[in-house]
Amino acid sequence: MVVVDILRATSVMVTALANGAKSILPVASLEEAKCHLNKEGYLCAAERGGEQVEGFPLDNSPYSYMNDKIKGACLVITTTNGTLALSKSTSAKEVLAGAFVNLTATSKYLMENKKDVIIHCAGWKGKTNMEDTLFAGALVEKLMNTHEMGCDTPRVALNFYQSVKHDLLRSIKKSSHAKRLNRLNIDKDIEFCARFDQFDIVPVLKEEYLISVD
Amino acid sequence: MVVVDILRATSVMVTALANGAKSILPVASLEEAKCHLNKEGYLCAAERGGEQVEGFPLDNSPYSYMNDKIKGACLVITTTNGTLALSKSTSAKEVLAGAFVNLTATSKYLMENKKDVIIHCAGWKGKTNMEDTLFAGALVEKLMNTHEMGCDTPRVALNFYQSVKHDLLRSIKKSSHAKRLNRLNIDKDIEFCARFDQFDIVPVLKEEYLISVD
Repeated sequence: MVVVDILRATSVMVTALANGAKSILPVASLEEAKCHLNKEGYLCAAERGGEQVEGFPLDNSPYSYMNDKIKGACLVITTTNGTLALSKSTSAKEVLAGAFVNLTATSKYLMENKKDVIIHCAGWKGKTNMEDTLFAGALVEKLMNTHEMGCDTPRVALNFYQSVKHDLLRSIKKSSHAKRLNRLNIDKDIEFCARFDQFDIVPVLKEEYLISVD
Repeated sequence: MVVVDILRATSVMVTALANGAKSILPVASLEEAKCHLNKEGYLCAAERGGEQVEGFPLDNSPYSYMNDKIKGACLVITTTNGTLALSKSTSAKEVLAGAFVNLTATSKYLMENKKDVIIHCAGWKGKTNMEDTLFAGALVEKLMNTHEMGCDTPRVALNFYQSVKHDLLRSIKKSSHAKRLNRLNIDKDIEFCARFDQFDIVPVLKEEYLISVD
Protein backbone atom coordinates (compact mmCIF):
# COMPACT_ATOMS: atom_id res chain seq x y z
CA MET A 1 0.00 0.00 0.00
CA VAL A 2 1.25 3.45 -0.95
CA VAL A 3 -0.02 6.19 1.34
CA VAL A 4 -0.01 9.68 -0.14
CA ASP A 5 -0.67 13.11 1.29
CA ILE A 6 0.97 15.44 -1.22
CA LEU A 7 0.15 18.63 0.75
CA ARG A 8 2.23 18.00 2.75
CA ALA A 9 2.75 15.03 5.04
CA THR A 10 4.25 12.42 2.71
CA SER A 11 6.21 15.05 0.75
CA VAL A 12 7.68 16.14 4.09
CA MET A 13 8.47 12.58 5.18
CA VAL A 14 10.34 11.79 1.96
CA THR A 15 12.23 15.08 2.27
CA ALA A 16 13.15 14.41 5.91
CA LEU A 17 14.50 10.91 5.28
CA ALA A 18 16.37 12.11 2.21
CA ASN A 19 17.96 14.79 4.40
CA GLY A 20 19.28 12.30 6.90
CA ALA A 21 16.52 11.72 9.43
CA LYS A 22 17.02 8.27 10.92
CA SER A 23 13.32 7.38 11.15
CA ILE A 24 9.86 8.88 11.40
CA LEU A 25 7.12 7.87 13.80
CA PRO A 26 3.81 9.01 12.29
CA VAL A 27 1.15 9.32 14.98
CA ALA A 28 -2.54 10.08 14.60
CA SER A 29 -3.15 12.21 17.69
CA LEU A 30 -1.54 15.25 19.29
CA GLU A 31 -1.52 13.36 22.60
CA GLU A 32 0.68 10.60 21.19
CA ALA A 33 3.02 13.19 19.69
CA LYS A 34 3.26 15.05 23.01
CA CYS A 35 4.60 11.91 24.75
CA HIS A 36 7.78 12.30 22.69
CA LEU A 37 8.38 16.02 23.33
CA ASN A 38 11.73 16.57 25.07
CA LYS A 39 12.78 12.89 24.66
CA GLU A 40 16.43 12.65 23.67
CA GLY A 41 16.98 11.92 19.99
CA TYR A 42 13.39 12.81 19.09
CA LEU A 43 12.14 15.87 17.21
CA CYS A 44 8.40 16.50 17.18
CA ALA A 45 6.23 18.09 14.46
CA ALA A 46 2.52 18.78 14.68
CA GLU A 47 0.12 20.36 12.24
CA ARG A 48 -3.64 20.85 12.39
CA GLY A 49 -5.65 22.65 9.71
CA GLY A 50 -2.45 23.61 7.91
CA GLU A 51 -0.83 25.35 10.89
CA GLN A 52 1.96 24.43 13.30
CA VAL A 53 0.58 23.41 16.71
CA GLU A 54 1.86 25.49 19.62
CA GLY A 55 4.46 23.80 21.76
CA PHE A 56 5.91 21.69 18.92
CA PRO A 57 9.32 22.67 17.50
CA LEU A 58 8.58 21.64 13.90
CA ASP A 59 5.83 22.42 11.40
CA ASN A 60 4.69 20.63 8.24
CA SER A 61 6.80 22.50 5.66
CA PRO A 62 9.32 20.48 3.64
CA TYR A 63 11.73 23.41 3.99
CA SER A 64 11.89 22.76 7.75
CA TYR A 65 13.49 19.40 7.03
CA MET A 66 16.43 20.46 4.92
CA ASN A 67 19.00 21.24 7.61
CA ASP A 68 21.54 19.65 9.94
CA LYS A 69 19.13 19.50 12.89
CA ILE A 70 17.32 16.69 11.07
CA LYS A 71 20.37 14.45 10.54
CA GLY A 72 20.19 11.29 12.63
CA ALA A 73 17.03 12.39 14.42
CA CYS A 74 13.94 10.33 14.98
CA LEU A 75 11.00 12.49 13.97
CA VAL A 76 7.56 12.21 15.49
CA ILE A 77 4.98 13.71 13.14
CA THR A 78 1.22 14.24 13.44
CA THR A 79 -0.79 15.99 10.71
CA THR A 80 -4.48 16.48 9.90
CA ASN A 81 -4.77 13.81 7.21
CA GLY A 82 -1.49 12.12 6.26
CA THR A 83 -0.46 10.53 9.55
CA LEU A 84 -4.06 9.44 10.14
CA ALA A 85 -4.02 7.67 6.74
CA LEU A 86 -0.73 5.96 7.68
CA SER A 87 -2.08 4.79 11.01
CA LYS A 88 -5.18 3.38 9.26
CA SER A 89 -2.95 1.41 6.86
CA THR A 90 -1.08 -0.76 9.31
CA SER A 91 -2.98 -3.92 8.38
CA ALA A 92 -1.47 -3.82 4.86
CA LYS A 93 1.43 -6.21 4.16
CA GLU A 94 3.77 -3.30 3.45
CA VAL A 95 3.21 0.42 3.71
CA LEU A 96 5.16 3.00 1.67
CA ALA A 97 4.94 6.78 1.77
CA GLY A 98 4.71 8.24 -1.74
CA ALA A 99 4.83 11.76 -3.16
CA PHE A 100 5.69 13.47 -6.43
CA VAL A 101 9.14 14.16 -4.98
CA ASN A 102 9.87 10.39 -4.97
CA LEU A 103 7.45 9.18 -7.68
CA THR A 104 9.97 7.32 -9.85
CA ALA A 105 11.72 5.73 -6.86
CA THR A 106 8.36 4.50 -5.55
CA SER A 107 7.27 3.07 -8.89
CA LYS A 108 10.63 1.33 -9.43
CA TYR A 109 10.40 -0.29 -6.01
CA LEU A 110 6.87 -1.54 -6.75
CA MET A 111 7.83 -2.85 -10.19
CA GLU A 112 10.93 -4.64 -8.94
CA ASN A 113 9.04 -6.23 -6.08
CA LYS A 114 6.11 -7.27 -8.30
CA LYS A 115 3.56 -6.44 -5.64
CA ASP A 116 -0.16 -5.73 -5.87
CA VAL A 117 -0.68 -2.05 -5.12
CA ILE A 118 -3.35 -0.09 -3.30
CA ILE A 119 -2.87 3.66 -3.41
CA HIS A 120 -4.31 5.14 -0.24
CA CYS A 121 -5.05 8.83 -0.81
CA ALA A 122 -5.20 10.65 2.51
CA GLY A 123 -7.57 13.26 1.08
CA TRP A 124 -9.00 15.99 3.25
CA LYS A 125 -10.97 14.98 6.33
CA GLY A 126 -12.35 11.85 4.68
CA LYS A 127 -13.02 13.42 1.28
CA THR A 128 -11.26 13.01 -2.05
CA ASN A 129 -8.79 15.74 -2.93
CA MET A 130 -7.21 16.75 -6.22
CA GLU A 131 -3.52 16.54 -5.39
CA ASP A 132 -3.56 13.01 -3.95
CA THR A 133 -5.76 11.81 -6.83
CA LEU A 134 -3.24 13.33 -9.27
CA PHE A 135 -0.40 11.47 -7.58
CA ALA A 136 -2.46 8.27 -7.83
CA GLY A 137 -2.87 8.91 -11.58
CA ALA A 138 0.86 9.55 -11.97
CA LEU A 139 1.71 6.30 -10.18
CA VAL A 140 -0.87 4.37 -12.25
CA GLU A 141 0.80 5.74 -15.40
CA LYS A 142 4.16 4.42 -14.19
CA LEU A 143 2.71 0.98 -13.37
CA MET A 144 0.52 0.56 -16.47
CA ASN A 145 2.74 -1.98 -18.15
CA THR A 146 3.35 -4.16 -15.11
CA HIS A 147 0.03 -3.99 -13.26
CA GLU A 148 -3.61 -4.47 -14.17
CA MET A 149 -6.31 -2.12 -12.94
CA GLY A 150 -8.67 -3.82 -10.50
CA CYS A 151 -11.55 -1.35 -11.00
CA ASP A 152 -12.34 2.03 -12.56
CA THR A 153 -10.89 4.21 -9.80
CA PRO A 154 -7.29 4.06 -11.13
CA ARG A 155 -8.65 4.72 -14.64
CA VAL A 156 -10.37 7.91 -13.45
CA ALA A 157 -7.20 9.04 -11.65
CA LEU A 158 -5.02 8.23 -14.69
CA ASN A 159 -7.26 10.13 -17.11
CA PHE A 160 -7.38 13.10 -14.76
CA TYR A 161 -3.60 13.12 -14.29
CA GLN A 162 -2.85 12.77 -18.00
CA SER A 163 -5.16 15.66 -18.83
CA VAL A 164 -3.31 18.10 -16.55
CA LYS A 165 0.23 16.73 -16.15
CA HIS A 166 1.70 19.32 -18.53
CA ASP A 167 0.94 21.90 -15.85
CA LEU A 168 0.62 19.99 -12.61
CA LEU A 169 1.35 22.92 -10.30
CA ARG A 170 -1.49 24.96 -11.79
CA SER A 171 -3.94 22.12 -11.15
CA ILE A 172 -2.76 21.55 -7.62
CA LYS A 173 -3.11 25.25 -6.88
CA LYS A 174 -6.78 24.98 -7.89
CA SER A 175 -7.44 22.36 -5.23
CA SER A 176 -9.43 23.38 -2.20
CA HIS A 177 -6.58 22.36 0.10
CA ALA A 178 -4.07 24.50 -1.79
CA LYS A 179 -6.50 27.41 -1.41
CA ARG A 180 -6.64 26.78 2.33
CA LEU A 181 -2.84 26.67 2.49
CA ASN A 182 -2.57 29.80 0.36
CA ARG A 183 -4.31 31.72 3.08
CA LEU A 184 -1.39 30.64 5.27
CA ASN A 185 1.15 31.93 2.72
CA ILE A 186 2.86 28.65 1.99
CA ASP A 187 2.91 28.92 -1.76
CA LYS A 188 6.57 27.91 -1.71
CA ASP A 189 5.66 24.59 -0.05
CA ILE A 190 3.00 23.85 -2.65
CA GLU A 191 5.46 24.57 -5.45
CA PHE A 192 7.99 22.19 -3.88
CA CYS A 193 5.44 19.39 -3.34
CA ALA A 194 4.50 19.50 -7.05
CA ARG A 195 8.09 18.78 -8.18
CA PHE A 196 8.87 15.36 -9.58
CA ASP A 197 11.68 13.10 -8.40
CA GLN A 198 13.68 15.29 -6.09
CA PHE A 199 14.78 12.26 -4.08
CA ASP A 200 15.66 8.68 -4.86
CA ILE A 201 14.36 7.15 -1.63
CA VAL A 202 11.33 5.09 -0.61
CA PRO A 203 10.04 5.37 2.96
CA VAL A 204 8.65 2.08 4.23
CA LEU A 205 6.91 1.37 7.52
CA LYS A 206 8.87 -1.09 9.72
CA GLU A 207 7.19 -1.79 13.01
CA GLU A 208 5.72 1.67 13.61
CA TYR A 209 8.59 3.66 12.07
CA LEU A 210 9.09 4.91 8.54
CA ILE A 211 12.64 4.31 7.38
CA SER A 212 14.31 4.59 4.02
CA VAL A 213 14.44 1.35 2.02
CA ASP A 214 18.01 0.32 1.21
CA MET B 1 -29.78 14.62 -4.97
CA VAL B 2 -29.23 13.32 -8.49
CA VAL B 3 -28.81 9.55 -8.67
CA VAL B 4 -26.99 8.26 -11.72
CA ASP B 5 -26.37 4.79 -13.09
CA ILE B 6 -25.52 5.42 -16.73
CA LEU B 7 -25.12 1.71 -17.61
CA ARG B 8 -28.05 1.32 -17.52
CA ALA B 9 -30.63 1.88 -14.77
CA THR B 10 -31.16 5.65 -14.84
CA SER B 11 -30.78 5.79 -18.64
CA VAL B 12 -33.55 3.16 -18.80
CA MET B 13 -35.77 5.01 -16.30
CA VAL B 14 -35.57 8.28 -18.23
CA THR B 15 -36.28 6.40 -21.47
CA ALA B 16 -39.28 4.58 -19.96
CA LEU B 17 -40.92 7.74 -18.57
CA ALA B 18 -40.25 9.58 -21.83
CA ASN B 19 -41.99 6.73 -23.66
CA GLY B 20 -45.16 7.03 -21.60
CA ALA B 21 -44.63 4.89 -18.50
CA LYS B 22 -46.85 6.32 -15.74
CA SER B 23 -44.39 5.71 -12.92
CA ILE B 24 -41.44 3.58 -11.84
CA LEU B 25 -41.02 1.84 -8.51
CA PRO B 26 -37.29 1.19 -8.04
CA VAL B 27 -36.73 -1.63 -5.56
CA ALA B 28 -33.46 -2.90 -4.11
CA SER B 29 -34.19 -6.64 -3.90
CA LEU B 30 -35.52 -9.30 -6.23
CA GLU B 31 -37.98 -10.33 -3.49
CA GLU B 32 -39.61 -6.90 -3.47
CA ALA B 33 -39.82 -6.93 -7.26
CA LYS B 34 -41.40 -10.40 -7.24
CA CYS B 35 -44.31 -9.12 -5.09
CA HIS B 36 -45.45 -7.10 -8.08
CA LEU B 37 -45.24 -9.83 -10.71
CA ASN B 38 -48.69 -10.46 -12.28
CA LYS B 39 -50.26 -7.43 -10.54
CA GLU B 40 -52.55 -5.56 -12.90
CA GLY B 41 -51.03 -2.39 -14.33
CA TYR B 42 -47.51 -3.36 -13.25
CA LEU B 43 -44.62 -4.45 -15.46
CA CYS B 44 -41.57 -5.90 -13.76
CA ALA B 45 -37.90 -5.69 -14.77
CA ALA B 46 -34.98 -7.35 -13.02
CA GLU B 47 -31.28 -7.38 -13.79
CA ARG B 48 -28.34 -8.83 -11.90
CA GLY B 49 -24.75 -8.75 -13.15
CA GLY B 50 -25.92 -7.26 -16.46
CA GLU B 51 -28.40 -10.02 -17.30
CA GLN B 52 -32.20 -10.30 -17.21
CA VAL B 53 -33.37 -12.35 -14.23
CA GLU B 54 -35.47 -15.40 -15.13
CA GLY B 55 -39.19 -15.03 -14.53
CA PHE B 56 -39.22 -11.27 -15.15
CA PRO B 57 -40.75 -9.99 -18.41
CA LEU B 58 -38.39 -7.01 -18.84
CA ASP B 59 -34.60 -6.59 -18.89
CA ASN B 60 -32.40 -3.52 -18.37
CA SER B 61 -32.01 -2.40 -21.99
CA PRO B 62 -33.35 1.05 -22.93
CA TYR B 63 -34.58 -0.47 -26.19
CA SER B 64 -37.06 -2.60 -24.21
CA TYR B 65 -38.80 0.59 -23.11
CA MET B 66 -39.56 2.18 -26.46
CA ASN B 67 -42.85 0.52 -27.32
CA ASP B 68 -46.59 0.69 -26.63
CA LYS B 69 -46.50 -1.93 -23.87
CA ILE B 70 -44.82 0.69 -21.69
CA LYS B 71 -47.48 3.39 -22.11
CA GLY B 72 -49.45 4.00 -18.92
CA ALA B 73 -47.73 1.14 -17.08
CA CYS B 74 -46.27 1.27 -13.64
CA LEU B 75 -42.81 -0.29 -13.87
CA VAL B 76 -41.12 -2.11 -11.03
CA ILE B 77 -37.38 -2.21 -11.59
CA THR B 78 -34.53 -3.82 -9.68
CA THR B 79 -30.92 -3.66 -10.91
CA THR B 80 -27.48 -4.46 -9.48
CA ASN B 81 -26.45 -0.90 -8.62
CA GLY B 82 -28.89 1.78 -9.76
CA THR B 83 -32.01 0.87 -7.83
CA LEU B 84 -29.90 0.20 -4.74
CA ALA B 85 -28.46 3.73 -5.02
CA LEU B 86 -32.00 5.14 -5.33
CA SER B 87 -33.22 3.23 -2.30
CA LYS B 88 -30.23 4.53 -0.30
CA SER B 89 -31.08 8.12 -1.26
CA THR B 90 -34.54 8.41 0.21
CA SER B 91 -33.43 10.62 3.11
CA ALA B 92 -32.53 13.41 0.65
CA LYS B 93 -34.99 16.30 0.32
CA GLU B 94 -35.58 15.50 -3.35
CA VAL B 95 -34.26 12.67 -5.50
CA LEU B 96 -33.87 12.90 -9.29
CA ALA B 97 -32.72 10.25 -11.75
CA GLY B 98 -30.09 11.64 -14.14
CA ALA B 99 -28.38 10.30 -17.26
CA PHE B 100 -26.67 11.66 -20.36
CA VAL B 101 -29.98 11.17 -22.19
CA ASN B 102 -31.59 13.88 -20.00
CA LEU B 103 -28.50 15.87 -18.94
CA THR B 104 -29.70 19.32 -20.04
CA ALA B 105 -33.22 18.80 -18.66
CA THR B 106 -31.73 17.78 -15.31
CA SER B 107 -29.36 20.74 -15.15
CA LYS B 108 -32.12 23.21 -16.10
CA TYR B 109 -34.35 21.86 -13.36
CA LEU B 110 -31.57 22.22 -10.79
CA MET B 111 -30.67 25.74 -11.93
CA GLU B 112 -34.28 26.93 -11.93
CA ASN B 113 -34.93 25.49 -8.51
CA LYS B 114 -31.69 26.90 -7.06
CA LYS B 115 -31.04 23.79 -5.02
CA ASP B 116 -27.86 22.44 -3.47
CA VAL B 117 -26.86 19.33 -5.38
CA ILE B 118 -25.31 16.03 -4.40
CA ILE B 119 -24.57 13.73 -7.33
CA HIS B 120 -24.88 10.15 -6.13
CA CYS B 121 -22.97 7.88 -8.51
CA ALA B 122 -24.28 4.32 -8.25
CA GLY B 123 -20.90 2.90 -9.29
CA TRP B 124 -20.30 -0.82 -9.42
CA LYS B 125 -20.86 -2.80 -6.23
CA GLY B 126 -19.72 0.03 -4.00
CA LYS B 127 -16.80 1.14 -6.17
CA THR B 128 -16.34 4.21 -8.35
CA ASN B 129 -16.98 3.68 -12.05
CA MET B 130 -15.98 5.71 -15.10
CA GLU B 131 -19.37 6.33 -16.72
CA ASP B 132 -21.15 7.66 -13.62
CA THR B 133 -18.13 9.84 -12.77
CA LEU B 134 -18.22 11.21 -16.34
CA PHE B 135 -21.90 12.08 -15.95
CA ALA B 136 -21.07 13.81 -12.66
CA GLY B 137 -18.40 15.85 -14.50
CA ALA B 138 -20.86 16.74 -17.27
CA LEU B 139 -23.45 17.91 -14.74
CA VAL B 140 -20.81 19.89 -12.81
CA GLU B 141 -19.89 21.65 -16.07
CA LYS B 142 -23.54 22.63 -16.59
CA LEU B 143 -23.85 23.96 -13.02
CA MET B 144 -20.50 25.76 -12.79
CA ASN B 145 -21.96 29.24 -13.06
CA THR B 146 -24.78 28.75 -10.57
CA HIS B 147 -23.26 26.43 -7.97
CA GLU B 148 -20.06 26.38 -5.95
CA MET B 149 -18.06 23.20 -5.48
CA GLY B 150 -18.13 22.00 -1.89
CA CYS B 151 -14.97 19.90 -2.12
CA ASP B 152 -12.50 18.49 -4.68
CA THR B 153 -14.59 15.52 -5.85
CA PRO B 154 -16.63 17.54 -8.40
CA ARG B 155 -13.37 19.14 -9.59
CA VAL B 156 -11.86 15.72 -10.29
CA ALA B 157 -15.02 14.61 -12.13
CA LEU B 158 -15.15 17.85 -14.14
CA ASN B 159 -11.51 17.63 -15.20
CA PHE B 160 -11.94 14.00 -16.17
CA TYR B 161 -15.10 14.71 -18.18
CA GLN B 162 -13.63 17.72 -19.97
CA SER B 163 -10.57 15.72 -21.00
CA VAL B 164 -12.65 13.06 -22.78
CA LYS B 165 -15.97 14.66 -23.69
CA HIS B 166 -15.01 15.00 -27.37
CA ASP B 167 -15.26 11.20 -27.55
CA LEU B 168 -17.42 10.16 -24.64
CA LEU B 169 -18.49 6.82 -26.07
CA ARG B 170 -14.89 5.69 -26.49
CA SER B 171 -14.14 6.46 -22.84
CA ILE B 172 -17.26 4.73 -21.58
CA LYS B 173 -16.39 1.66 -23.62
CA LYS B 174 -13.06 1.52 -21.75
CA SER B 175 -14.84 1.24 -18.39
CA SER B 176 -14.78 -2.10 -16.64
CA HIS B 177 -18.58 -2.20 -16.59
CA ALA B 178 -18.82 -1.62 -20.33
CA LYS B 179 -16.37 -4.50 -20.77
CA ARG B 180 -18.59 -6.69 -18.63
CA LEU B 181 -21.64 -5.67 -20.68
CA ASN B 182 -19.75 -6.21 -23.93
CA ARG B 183 -19.46 -9.84 -23.08
CA LEU B 184 -23.26 -9.83 -23.07
CA ASN B 185 -23.38 -8.23 -26.55
CA ILE B 186 -25.15 -5.07 -25.59
CA ASP B 187 -22.97 -2.64 -27.44
CA LYS B 188 -26.09 -0.97 -28.82
CA ASP B 189 -27.26 -0.17 -25.27
CA ILE B 190 -23.91 1.37 -24.35
CA GLU B 191 -23.98 3.52 -27.48
CA PHE B 192 -27.50 4.72 -26.60
CA CYS B 193 -26.64 5.50 -22.97
CA ALA B 194 -23.74 7.72 -24.12
CA ARG B 195 -26.04 9.99 -26.17
CA PHE B 196 -26.78 13.47 -24.86
CA ASP B 197 -30.24 14.94 -24.40
CA GLN B 198 -32.50 12.43 -26.08
CA PHE B 199 -35.34 13.37 -23.76
CA ASP B 200 -36.57 16.55 -22.11
CA ILE B 201 -37.85 14.97 -18.90
CA VAL B 202 -36.69 14.80 -15.27
CA PRO B 203 -37.70 11.78 -13.17
CA VAL B 204 -38.28 12.72 -9.55
CA LEU B 205 -39.05 10.44 -6.62
CA LYS B 206 -42.51 11.11 -5.10
CA GLU B 207 -43.33 8.82 -2.23
CA GLU B 208 -41.59 5.70 -3.52
CA TYR B 209 -42.32 6.22 -7.22
CA LEU B 210 -40.31 7.99 -9.90
CA ILE B 211 -42.54 10.18 -12.01
CA SER B 212 -41.79 12.78 -14.65
CA VAL B 213 -41.63 16.35 -13.33
CA ASP B 214 -44.19 18.60 -15.05
